[in-house]
Amino acid sequence: MAGAKPRLRLFVETPLAAGLTAPLSPEQAHRALAVMRMAQGEAVALFNGRDGEWRGGLMPAGRRAAAVTISRQMRAQAPEPDLWLAFAPLDGPHTALLVEKATELGVARLLPVLTARTQGRSFKDERLAARALAAAEQCERLTVPEIAPAVPLDRLLAGWPAARPLLVGDETGAGRPLAEVAAGLAGAPGGLALLTGPEGGFAVAELDELAGRPFVTRVHMGPRILRAETAAIAGLAILQALAGDWRESGGTPRGYE
Amino acid sequence: MAGAKPRLRLFVETPLAAGLTAPLSPEQAHRALAVMRMAQGEAVALFNGRDGEWRGGLMPAGRRAAAVTISRQMRAQAPEPDLWLAFAPLDGPHTALLVEKATELGVARLLPVLTARTQGRSFKDERLAARALAAAEQCERLTVPEIAPAVPLDRLLAGWPAARPLLVGDETGAGRPLAEVAAGLAGAPGGLALLTGPEGGFAVAELDELAGRPFVTRVHMGPRILRAETAAIAGLAILQALAGDWRESGGTPRGYE
Repeated sequence: MAGAKPRLRLFVETPLAAGLTAPLSPEQAHRALAVMRMAQGEAVALFNGRDGEWRGGLMPAGRRAAAVTISRQMRAQAPEPDLWLAFAPLDGPHTALLVEKATELGVARLLPVLTARTQGRSFKDERLAARALAAAEQCERLTVPEIAPAVPLDRLLAGWPAARPLLVGDETGAGRPLAEVAAGLAGAPGGLALLTGPEGGFAVAELDELAGRPFVTRVHMGPRILRAETAAIAGLAILQALAGDWRESGGTPRGYE
Repeated sequence: MAGAKPRLRLFVETPLAAGLTAPLSPEQAHRALAVMRMAQGEAVALFNGRDGEWRGGLMPAGRRAAAVTISRQMRAQAPEPDLWLAFAPLDGPHTALLVEKATELGVARLLPVLTARTQGRSFKDERLAARALAAAEQCERLTVPEIAPAVPLDRLLAGWPAARPLLVGDETGAGRPLAEVAAGLAGAPGGLALLTGPEGGFAVAELDELAGRPFVTRVHMGPRILRAETAAIAGLAILQALAGDWRESGGTPRGYE
């Protein structure tokens, strides 16, 4: 059955299958009814990170509550890139920007790391989770990235999975060009990770500590000094382009036809 | 003579050579004296887009004016990537973000383009120019990118230099993977350009119009729907990594030693 692309795409926790009803949270119902003024029966897209993406119809229950009656699957759940971003939380709004962009760029797991020069220690986990969720809804992912609890750098390294290469953005200009390293890691079985530092960069002792780990490769991203969030976004884009899921041909747009 | 890296790096219009004095603007003097509380003789780095980067000493003239006495050259002027970004201006703060990130990523020329669905028609040119200037000072470029006047898409295409490939981010998923296209364009003699659309994407007629131009290649950036500013930032990073100045080895950090 043909149908226009739903105006609203939401993440829910409940199972998704034809005939089930998914209750919306008060915030989701408010968005559908009060903000977007959607009518009864209007199409909504739902995903839960497990059952793919489904289409359903909005069922208001008064002015402040609503559910979605699920009709049919639009996309099956599919593997997504096994790409992690470890990052030093930044000042002000930059951490939220980073989380949003990393979500769009397909990161599976976000790992905040406290380094010697990390400024942004007071970031709100719940605000970051909300930003990741909103970005996942908007960019049409089938999952929401996990945000790990913040840990000091030495603990991150002590528990690091040895089979996962960790590429470290080294702003001193040491290291190999990222594209060269990334091209050699396409299809790495243990997944991939990028680590970017805080506004002031890594301390020399941290760079030495990192260089001594067998899973670490230091990379550079050109001759200009990138802001921390720019380095993370640029690095993720290059990893997806050369070792991730941007290598496949796009073909026709995914379908609501 | 050894010296710490200057805390302040400024763009000036005046010529730079040993022994000359560069007057600072009232804003620059305010920043040095009132905001950063710099002392007389403290080192300042200067660039003007033509004469490389120079080191000098701050010379206050009262509380509100200052100049820099230029002592020695730190870097000679060098060619920078011939990369343009044509973009549809975006809503709210996103255009300024885009200008900042494009500057960091080494774009030589920014070309605002008005498309059928462009929302951000009221952007302030002078604010964008200030953002580009600040980003150029911060990222240690030797130039400030030029911002062209906004033009409609058909006029951009009518005057396009035929020798400059124009890669168009096509959010319908048509087009070749950007990395594949970029790798084939390394060292393109006419330079390179990326064009990204507005929040709502290009209109179908615009995509058809673009596809008919011999200098246009449509590219895709993966299976997720990227925000317009994310697509521009990601695309520029990939172009620099594969066809630009991120391919060279970094070697030792550039020097103020």
